[in-house]
Amino acid sequence: MKIAVDGMGGDFAPQAIVEGAVLAAQQHNTSITLVGDEGRLERELDRLQAHALPITICHASEVVHMDEAPVMALRKKRFSSIRVAMELVRSGEAQAVVSAGNTGAALGAATMILRPLRGIDRPAIATLLPTQKGASILLDVGANVDCKSTQLFQFGIMGDVFAKCILDKPYPAVGLLAIGEEDTKGNDVTREAFLMLKQSDLNFIGNIEGKPFFHGVADVVVCDGFIGNVALKMCEGVAEMYGQALKTALTRTPWRRLAATLLRPALQDIRRRVDASEYGGAPLLGVNGTCIIGHGNSTPKAVKNAIHMAQRFLEERVTERIQEEVERNSDIQDASGARGRNIWRHIRSTMSFRGEREEEDEEVTSEP
Amino acid sequence: MKIAVDGMGGDFAPQAIVEGAVLAAQQHNTSITLVGDEGRLERELDRLQAHALPITICHASEVVHMDEAPVMALRKKRFSSIRVAMELVRSGEAQAVVSAGNTGAALGAATMILRPLRGIDRPAIATLLPTQKGASILLDVGANVDCKSTQLFQFGIMGDVFAKCILDKPYPAVGLLAIGEEDTKGNDVTREAFLMLKQSDLNFIGNIEGKPFFHGVADVVVCDGFIGNVALKMCEGVAEMYGQALKTALTRTPWRRLAATLLRPALQDIRRRVDASEYGGAPLLGVNGTCIIGHGNSTPKAVKNAIHMAQRFLEERVTERIQEEVERNSDIQDASGARGRNIWRHIRSTMSFRGEREEEDEEVTSEP
Repeated sequence: MKIAVDGMGGDFAPQAIVEGAVLAAQQHNTSITLVGDEGRLERELDRLQAHALPITICHASEVVHMDEAPVMALRKKRFSSIRVAMELVRSGEAQAVVSAGNTGAALGAATMILRPLRGIDRPAIATLLPTQKGASILLDVGANVDCKSTQLFQFGIMGDVFAKCILDKPYPAVGLLAIGEEDTKGNDVTREAFLMLKQSDLNFIGNIEGKPFFHGVADVVVCDGFIGNVALKMCEGVAEMYGQALKTALTRTPWRRLAATLLRPALQDIRRRVDASEYGGAPLLGVNGTCIIGHGNSTPKAVKNAIHMAQRFLEERVTERIQEEVERNSDIQDASGARGRNIWRHIRSTMSFRGEREEEDEEVTSEP
Repeated sequence: MKIAVDGMGGDFAPQAIVEGAVLAAQQHNTSITLVGDEGRLERELDRLQAHALPITICHASEVVHMDEAPVMALRKKRFSSIRVAMELVRSGEAQAVVSAGNTGAALGAATMILRPLRGIDRPAIATLLPTQKGASILLDVGANVDCKSTQLFQFGIMGDVFAKCILDKPYPAVGLLAIGEEDTKGNDVTREAFLMLKQSDLNFIGNIEGKPFFHGVADVVVCDGFIGNVALKMCEGVAEMYGQALKTALTRTPWRRLAATLLRPALQDIRRRVDASEYGGAPLLGVNGTCIIGHGNSTPKAVKNAIHMAQRFLEERVTERIQEEVERNSDIQDASGARGRNIWRHIRSTMSFRGEREEEDEEVTSEP
């Protein structure tokens, strides 16, 4: 089991990345291939006196920078570290990729080189968010804008497997992000996805509003990547604003500064609870291979945790289990696809939905 | 100038509503018509010894409850307080409606009875959110799912007028909620809205991501009602989670409780900064008349502030100014509408967008 780590991706690459890889190798004895500029990576390993660890280097002469347009950069830079890392997984020299670099480039390279799993339209980025009960998974958070209902359905399946693996929940509660809890709330796409999820063998608990998400009512919440990304970033913005307001309020007078000193452990507790680096990365689910994407500003600890997440993914066979679950639920997708393709069947199924007369489509459409 | 207040709408109606109306009449000398059950409203005014104030009662025998399906309830309850309040504005007996009741019912009644303004497809709900710089406006936050680009454009115009009135900004910065700052980021709808906003006479500053929203980079941020509602509720959820975490952390040991006591003013500062009742309500923009929707759990203070907001709307002629701005920018909408209606023009305009050859549509489509 070998994990390819994009040594050049991230705001603090290669230093933070190599340090994180060294920590992972020391603490979990993970076999790692650092991908990137050989000279620079070698110097970092020298600095950390890490040559005895199970870390090798695979040279890649180019880098996709954080602010580059991903598609163009991937096309031009055939020897970029992220492409070379993905190629290592495709050829079987590694089993997983971890990158804290340009997210669009990692997504593009994974889609292009590893390819989506059978029955998955496009991969999705899943993220763990803290809730009042612990943590819940939100996906997609940015890989797909304008999702179809089948994609939302696939996100549900992928999130379910992720939750089983990472949250240790045997039967995770899966919800659909919506603007009301009633079954009929939402737009056309979410209403169709609702019906599909309801028929699946997932533990689907229905529509979830934004506020109950943070009460932890669902383990997995599914949404369009546009909405997920906007919501995620807004939540980060609120958290940052609160942090700033607290900091300002607690340093205004000497008395407050004294009290704040007494409260430092309490404030650190809170920060730890909502600290993204505890999780380390967001998996890109639905491709042939494990792929964990870290924040651009990943610290060594975040990189270490992202590598550890990749390792758990491999041990738990997440990719294979997603493939199995998609296949087990393929009839639901097929029925929905047929509805989309065949207008006559679509009209009939709508009629059967209203009047519950047509037997053929009843299973698909007569669920409440 | 008279403001019709839905006396029966809200979790704490009629008590909290009548108290709020009394505060508004006392502090701002506002003329108010309380709409609802005459006997109950009369008793509340008795209790508050408020008969000398400029408050009258208009009887309405029915109530749309908080958990009722709005469309059905409005159809059945022709004498519900929210319908009667809207009728007062239509007939000119009042100029504005304030309701803390069922939001869907207020939206439905306003659309049905007051009707959208000329050139506005559907009204939108705007909300003020605290930011690191003060406050910014987000709209739509739930009135419309599946918005068209013309609607997003209209939201921009309406939000601009709202910001001029309520934030006292002569030339508010208007942004479009997106998943990246580059001009081309977004989905089909937001990309088209981007072009329309760019051509308008608004101070359009481009795409805004969720996190910079809370830095206060824009005064007005425009989005689809599904996204806006989900994002708003998730932000409320994060804020609540932080509040809970802080509370738990600060009460765990006697030392911490002592320190927290010293910090009470600081914590209250923060709470005040992010307190929704400071604003009191969210205006429903784009109908013939002023309409302010309060939170279901509105306190008397929140009701008073919502009434005060309605009064400012009337003084600042917000509805009339929205109508004027929509008319001034109507050529942009017409051009977009024509693209939608006429498939040939649409194809030509696409071609001219790619090749910039067609002169006719160039102004509309050749913007970057």
